[in-house]
Amino acid sequence: MPIRIGKDTIGLPEGVFVNASVGIAGKKEKEGPLGKYFDVAFNNDKLGMKTWEKAESELQNTAVRILLRKAAAAPESIDVIFAGDLLNQCISSTYGLRSLKIPLLGQFGACSTMAQTLAMAAIFTASGAALRAAAVTSSHFCTAERQFRLPIEYGGQRSPTAQWTVTGAGAALVSRTLSPVRINAVTVGRINDLKVKDAANMGAAMAPAAADTISRFLKDTNTKPTDYDLILTGDLGRVGSELLIKLLNRHGTDISPVHNDCGLMIYDIEGQDVHSGGSGCGCSASVFCSYIMQKLTKGELKNVLFAATGALMSPTASQQGESIPSIAHLISLTHS
Amino acid sequence: MPIRIGKDTIGLPEGVFVNASVGIAGKKEKEGPLGKYFDVAFNNDKLGMKTWEKAESELQNTAVRILLRKAAAAPESIDVIFAGDLLNQCISSTYGLRSLKIPLLGQFGACSTMAQTLAMAAIFTASGAALRAAAVTSSHFCTAERQFRLPIEYGGQRSPTAQWTVTGAGAALVSRTLSPVRINAVTVGRINDLKVKDAANMGAAMAPAAADTISRFLKDTNTKPTDYDLILTGDLGRVGSELLIKLLNRHGTDISPVHNDCGLMIYDIEGQDVHSGGSGCGCSASVFCSYIMQKLTKGELKNVLFAATGALMSPTASQQGESIPSIAHLISLTHS
Repeated sequence: MPIRIGKDTIGLPEGVFVNASVGIAGKKEKEGPLGKYFDVAFNNDKLGMKTWEKAESELQNTAVRILLRKAAAAPESIDVIFAGDLLNQCISSTYGLRSLKIPLLGQFGACSTMAQTLAMAAIFTASGAALRAAAVTSSHFCTAERQFRLPIEYGGQRSPTAQWTVTGAGAALVSRTLSPVRINAVTVGRINDLKVKDAANMGAAMAPAAADTISRFLKDTNTKPTDYDLILTGDLGRVGSELLIKLLNRHGTDISPVHNDCGLMIYDIEGQDVHSGGSGCGCSASVFCSYIMQKLTKGELKNVLFAATGALMSPTASQQGESIPSIAHLISLTHS
Repeated sequence: MPIRIGKDTIGLPEGVFVNASVGIAGKKEKEGPLGKYFDVAFNNDKLGMKTWEKAESELQNTAVRILLRKAAAAPESIDVIFAGDLLNQCISSTYGLRSLKIPLLGQFGACSTMAQTLAMAAIFTASGAALRAAAVTSSHFCTAERQFRLPIEYGGQRSPTAQWTVTGAGAALVSRTLSPVRINAVTVGRINDLKVKDAANMGAAMAPAAADTISRFLKDTNTKPTDYDLILTGDLGRVGSELLIKLLNRHGTDISPVHNDCGLMIYDIEGQDVHSGGSGCGCSASVFCSYIMQKLTKGELKNVLFAATGALMSPTASQQGESIPSIAHLISLTHS
């Protein structure tokens, strides 16, 4: 049964377990430092589909089908799936999951979606509302560019603070069945807004949310950064990671010895010309569900905080002069 | 503690309670049959804001502030808020709730969002993950027209099957504290798709999902339609309601004696020229959180199934030739 810990954290005393996970990615990601860790990495980002959006749906569908195979589970055995993505009305998720007929609770957390969906799956299974719950999310470079910025054919120039949206997806299955990776607690994020307006600097927009959630978790649990092997953010990238460390240091919390960021891990930052690093729901999803889960499963990582961040804006809001609010959700995992 | 009932339903044996609710609406809704039931109904749909999108955010912010006042609750006393809307990246919710600093789990269920957010709030409080949880959603005629169809200045003609997006919002507070309206169970929807492609006929697109979820709930609970005072759908409108009844009748389930639809209730269908009826997240939200909750509170309604439906498409998907999948989430409420 979930319990409240401190002001904002939800503890799962009996624990729930990530029984299986799948990380899949596209061509650029395959060529990056984590290429060999993905369950599947495609050579062509179209995935044989007619449009980029259908390709992104195919990423989600593929991730979940592989997940079900890994877990030897039929779709009918999954009580609920939590899914979301960056596209308007979350169409990657809808069309990607349509054929599987699993009860769906659509989630919107922008790039924080992997942590959010895992958190939801954890709470539902810990409470008995579901026996088995799945979590999935995706992003795609081309769908994101088309929707948030400009079609790639335009040849627009990217600023140094800009990030590269990952073409990738991650899926995970959670239940109370014992397995090596255990979810212990969840901290739900709050909207943070330090009035960053530069849509080409998402790292700066999102760092405040990460600082807020991480510090609230540490306070609630009365723990310190070095109690953990890794405090992993989703896609703050280079700029956002530096800012996160600064923001936390102002309050006497130094996470630098244990911090890493999926957006910095997924690409060779200089060699692949991704400016500030990777971004998108698929960034933390593909990295967490492959590389991180593999390390946690083997016990090479034992105690991890996974805090994915999302920038809660849209082009419409930016055009109306609004700033970019952000949110970060955190889950605490251990090798059990 | 939540329990599984049958294949797909989540039972809440100890019950959770809707301690307070607020329905607010705009001018057209104020002039409709339920005008006097709304907590607040505005004379001007701009709500003093500069843009339609900011006005819609103001609807959510207003709904939640009135909710907190009604419940004599400070924002800090709410452990989590579930919110979502129809706009790209759910910006109505983000900007509407930003100032309140309540931990947020963004939900996407299109027009099913009121049922979805209530379901989430119920499960979180039943499980102990939250002591108090809020649910809120909104829609706005002008933001929806701009995003999904055409700017209103264009003067486009609406077909007979088209529905009118409600300018309105609903918010509710859920906890285990006893009060007259109890949530007993939740059935999470599955994506349904009978290949309807006409974006001007959302009722037809969504009816299959409503039929699916309602029939699964009845089967899981071994109950029949006439066990309930009211089986209330969110915004099927005229066309969708007829289709729902037909679809269920094919399987020997007749809900016609007890069925009603918020989209048919909120407007004078002929007199206000809304063609097939009202639609949008705010349709079921404003009606349920005002009129229906008032009836349930007084015991004039005793046993209600509230099944809101959502059309999970976007203009991009339609432009790519896709059909319109739908989903329906159901909650079972009683006067306790």
